[in-house]
Amino acid sequence: MNITYADPVHDYLQQVEALIFSQPDHSHSNPATAFFKLIASGGKRIRPRLALLVGSMLGANKLYLITLAAAIEMLHNATLVHDDLVDNSLLRRGMATLNAHYSSIITVLVGDYAFARAAKLASNTQSLPVMNLFAETLMIMADGELTQACRKSDIFTRAEYYRWIHAKTASMFELATGAAALLSPVAHTEIIASARKFGSEIGMAFQIVDDILDFTGNRNTLGKPTGNDLRQGVITLPTLCYLDTHPDYPITDILQHKKDKATGSSRIDQLILDICKNGAIDQAYQEADGFIQRGLSALATLPDTPERHALAEIARSVICRNN
Amino acid sequence: MNITYADPVHDYLQQVEALIFSQPDHSHSNPATAFFKLIASGGKRIRPRLALLVGSMLGANKLYLITLAAAIEMLHNATLVHDDLVDNSLLRRGMATLNAHYSSIITVLVGDYAFARAAKLASNTQSLPVMNLFAETLMIMADGELTQACRKSDIFTRAEYYRWIHAKTASMFELATGAAALLSPVAHTEIIASARKFGSEIGMAFQIVDDILDFTGNRNTLGKPTGNDLRQGVITLPTLCYLDTHPDYPITDILQHKKDKATGSSRIDQLILDICKNGAIDQAYQEADGFIQRGLSALATLPDTPERHALAEIARSVICRNN
Repeated sequence: MNITYADPVHDYLQQVEALIFSQPDHSHSNPATAFFKLIASGGKRIRPRLALLVGSMLGANKLYLITLAAAIEMLHNATLVHDDLVDNSLLRRGMATLNAHYSSIITVLVGDYAFARAAKLASNTQSLPVMNLFAETLMIMADGELTQACRKSDIFTRAEYYRWIHAKTASMFELATGAAALLSPVAHTEIIASARKFGSEIGMAFQIVDDILDFTGNRNTLGKPTGNDLRQGVITLPTLCYLDTHPDYPITDILQHKKDKATGSSRIDQLILDICKNGAIDQAYQEADGFIQRGLSALATLPDTPERHALAEIARSVICRNN
Repeated sequence: MNITYADPVHDYLQQVEALIFSQPDHSHSNPATAFFKLIASGGKRIRPRLALLVGSMLGANKLYLITLAAAIEMLHNATLVHDDLVDNSLLRRGMATLNAHYSSIITVLVGDYAFARAAKLASNTQSLPVMNLFAETLMIMADGELTQACRKSDIFTRAEYYRWIHAKTASMFELATGAAALLSPVAHTEIIASARKFGSEIGMAFQIVDDILDFTGNRNTLGKPTGNDLRQGVITLPTLCYLDTHPDYPITDILQHKKDKATGSSRIDQLILDICKNGAIDQAYQEADGFIQRGLSALATLPDTPERHALAEIARSVICRNN
């Protein structure tokens, strides 16, 4: 993501990084080191940036805000560890995932360790409302993952898709902006609600754009093959948009036979091409933009500060990103 | 465990059970149901009982205390889910484990879900010190599991064994008694320290007895085969005691060849018999008793109430249990 605005929280973000990488003495195992390398390898740090901007805008204590931002980035990376295992993904940010290098067991334990570190950092904010929102978010995310893994059908309705991306992505964006607002000594109920709404809406857009880039993105930029979701049997918004205009398309049949090497793979290839050509991508972008606009409306009720301008620019950049 | 004392927290414990089984609306997946069946299938509820007794002894708010006790039992069961997966255990309390029924992936996600529920319950105690201790305990446990899984050698020193059983078992007992004390409106620093010490010490004894029962217990009572730890290559206190008096025993060699069907299995069988016959079990019980005595000394500094008597009886019963 190219950030063109003057970044009001640049210095804070460096302190967040320092806190993330300040390992407790007792952890020097190789897989834990590999986990920290994975965090260091990149990622956009959009979640901690959102937390820092919202908190700064609302006058939150700097130390607690930095701690919160570190907790959220740690939680994000913890979920990636278990997600990559569950999805059997071998690449992330162009690097080998933990499960590509280590056994499932070690990967599970590294994920648990990262969750524990995230919880510890969150508890260091010394804010009960933050801890409550943190725990509530964990529940939403874990329940969403389990519900998704246990689904009997490959086919999603739009409502199910939106529920799923809220659980897996938007809830953590909502935590980032909402918990930052909760750290503010002055934020009242409406301000906190607007901060949460802003985070949730742009989180939804962020995931939709992720799902679009899975079709349209460059393999090298994304670090994974194009059309990966559909090849794994996962339906996302571009496919749902395509099915809206092609209600008779035999999607169930295609997904059921996706492992049939003789015809399955080429039919999936053709479907991916069709989705990219038939307006489904535009439609998905329009839906993402709807979330961005609702997020910006919520943001507009918050104090008019340089941080708010930076938040608006982040929101708009979510649509334009290419990785 | 046969509890012979009048139980001062019997009614509270029923409310803990009710809280554990009050599922949120959004979770009705089969594996989550299987998880709750596993909790319902038994277990001694020693951790929530300890929390309830310590909290009642120190005048903690009843509602928050019940919530804490439910959080701790949930956390305990969450760790069992990932532990059984890591150890590839197929039986627990005589029932099939989750990983025996479901894929590793589903098992990981059920564990995550249970961790999240535990964190949510803990946050419902509305106590920052409790949340801090809860998060610190998660860190100790996760770090211990990861350190153990990454060990390059099968051989433990006594110090390493004690560190490991503190991380995997005693830290949660310490959380149960310490967090309950933290909920007390009157407990000062020394009382909290004594409560934590009591929990930690009897937790150490509890795990040692677990490790003894792995050698001496009845397969039907334990729900797993005798000598299971050693068969899996895991050294525990009875083996360490045996090695103290048999310093030249070729333990490394035996463990390296344990998968060699021709001789490995019969040599392990013989070692298990030798450990049971040569005073190693007695020595291990003596060490467990040392922990119990130190726990009772810490307990003796706490207020002399019916709850304290019940806690002392639990401490002594840890040594006598047979499952």
